[in-house]
Amino acid sequence: MDKKIPAYKNIQEAHERIKGFIHDTPVLKSDSINSILKVKLFFKCENFQKAGVFKYRGATNAVQMLNEKSMKYGVATHSSGNHAAALSLAAKKRDIPAYIVMPQNASDIKIKAVKTYGGNITFCKSTLDAREKMLKKVKDDTGAYFIHPYNNFDVICGQGTAAIEFLEKVPDLDYIIVPVGGGGLLSGTAIASKAINPNIKVYAAEPKKADDAYRSFKKGVFIPVQRPKTIADGLLTSLSPLTFEIIRNNVDDILTVKEQTIIDAMRMIWERMKIIVEPSSAVALASVIENKYLFRSKKIGIILSGGNIDLNKLPF
Amino acid sequence: MDKKIPAYKNIQEAHERIKGFIHDTPVLKSDSINSILKVKLFFKCENFQKAGVFKYRGATNAVQMLNEKSMKYGVATHSSGNHAAALSLAAKKRDIPAYIVMPQNASDIKIKAVKTYGGNITFCKSTLDAREKMLKKVKDDTGAYFIHPYNNFDVICGQGTAAIEFLEKVPDLDYIIVPVGGGGLLSGTAIASKAINPNIKVYAAEPKKADDAYRSFKKGVFIPVQRPKTIADGLLTSLSPLTFEIIRNNVDDILTVKEQTIIDAMRMIWERMKIIVEPSSAVALASVIENKYLFRSKKIGIILSGGNIDLNKLPF
Repeated sequence: MDKKIPAYKNIQEAHERIKGFIHDTPVLKSDSINSILKVKLFFKCENFQKAGVFKYRGATNAVQMLNEKSMKYGVATHSSGNHAAALSLAAKKRDIPAYIVMPQNASDIKIKAVKTYGGNITFCKSTLDAREKMLKKVKDDTGAYFIHPYNNFDVICGQGTAAIEFLEKVPDLDYIIVPVGGGGLLSGTAIASKAINPNIKVYAAEPKKADDAYRSFKKGVFIPVQRPKTIADGLLTSLSPLTFEIIRNNVDDILTVKEQTIIDAMRMIWERMKIIVEPSSAVALASVIENKYLFRSKKIGIILSGGNIDLNKLPF
Repeated sequence: MDKKIPAYKNIQEAHERIKGFIHDTPVLKSDSINSILKVKLFFKCENFQKAGVFKYRGATNAVQMLNEKSMKYGVATHSSGNHAAALSLAAKKRDIPAYIVMPQNASDIKIKAVKTYGGNITFCKSTLDAREKMLKKVKDDTGAYFIHPYNNFDVICGQGTAAIEFLEKVPDLDYIIVPVGGGGLLSGTAIASKAINPNIKVYAAEPKKADDAYRSFKKGVFIPVQRPKTIADGLLTSLSPLTFEIIRNNVDDILTVKEQTIIDAMRMIWERMKIIVEPSSAVALASVIENKYLFRSKKIGIILSGGNIDLNKLPF
């Protein structure tokens, strides 16, 4: 486990490294949402990123950082979601295999995405213990290099590159708000944003029903999540030692939001902006909806984290 | 009824006139759709246009063209759909009232949109006869100026401005394909595209279940649609004398598509591009799906006409 803390320079280097592989995703505005909420919002659209999610940045950086020896037998991870697809695609671009341990109950659409990008899936029971055991077996069998979805220096550096592009386009944001699950995006965003603009406030938004980051941040001790249950299925995971350390030192505040507000925010983005975001992406806007007075008239950057959703299972 | 045929110069003038009011919408590509269909597609995203539809261009041009006397009592139209919302917003921007005659069975979301933009709604029975009678009454009562959704010189000029922006960004298209309902977008697109690039082929795409444009085009006589029934609810209308005359002289071919292909194309755009388009917008891509060999390896421009859809009534 790599506990070294990334510096802004490392994120800049990551950006140079992955530029040719990723989309510099657009920043969109919505006059109608601004007028409803009385704020000035800017949305960095990582739902348009390759593999449909910001995680392609971190996965690409981690895969590109591997030396010939480490990459020889491919890469491995356990994930029920977006990291699995992102890592599969990142590995494919370097012509190495990706071994993905997925729980049996992973959604069809996530399984399909991993297969589309050429990932080799091994299924296991859905407990963390079963996933870790199966990952160990896969690593032993294949010799593949493990790339953790967020407790990884290179992954965090890759996730931070979205903030570099964002602040290049809109330098004078008052706030930048991102959803927090494992904390990879939040960690990279906080380090990069504070280095570029020391006056910016970095906020995280988290579902009340999976609020380990909020509780850990407020108590100053790492408290893993217990039985999270939220529609924001990308945010079910707990922080890791590395992301917790970065977040407690670089994030200004964490706001928690209700499930219904997440759905309302998602619907607002779909209807007003005509773009598809997954529920996890809507959590940051939900925090603005629930804290209108705090944010009144401010210039706020939101990273829309991803757009992978099963159209057969919409919450509306 | 204005039967004068717009020239390219009129569309250029319309573009200068409305530039400050409209969005220059982005042109998007999708590597994954290109690789599935083996074509090079470019999508002009009028689903991101104000009021969520290209019709805001034509409505704005028509409203801006009114002189002080004509605009004195506002504007009126009958429409169950996007033209009603677009005209309401265009009128609001010029601080004049819009009187909208809508059938009682118009969808809630369309009624809501008209109200949001400040349109004054009068409901009537859903027959064409009832709509025209009610429109006459509203005009008599208010003195408002009637702006037809497509059988109108200024509206057609406005719709043609999307093609100017499109071909500025991608000049060397082999084909440009747009959906055809009343034919306003198709007429404006055909005139502008052929003037800018005489080698371009202008195609229309139409649902088989509302194929009056196809039949009129092939027979060389205007045949109004009989009992159209398609998921592409923006394409239920028939051509008008003006649009038929333009289309027969400027369009290269019309392709008809099945309902299921429209749904498949719409789903492909939602899933692969992460953007929301209404079924009418997906008809052009459906024509590519049904004619892969015709279009193989070609550079094709598609105008995604709009993004107004009731999220509670999705076809998947």
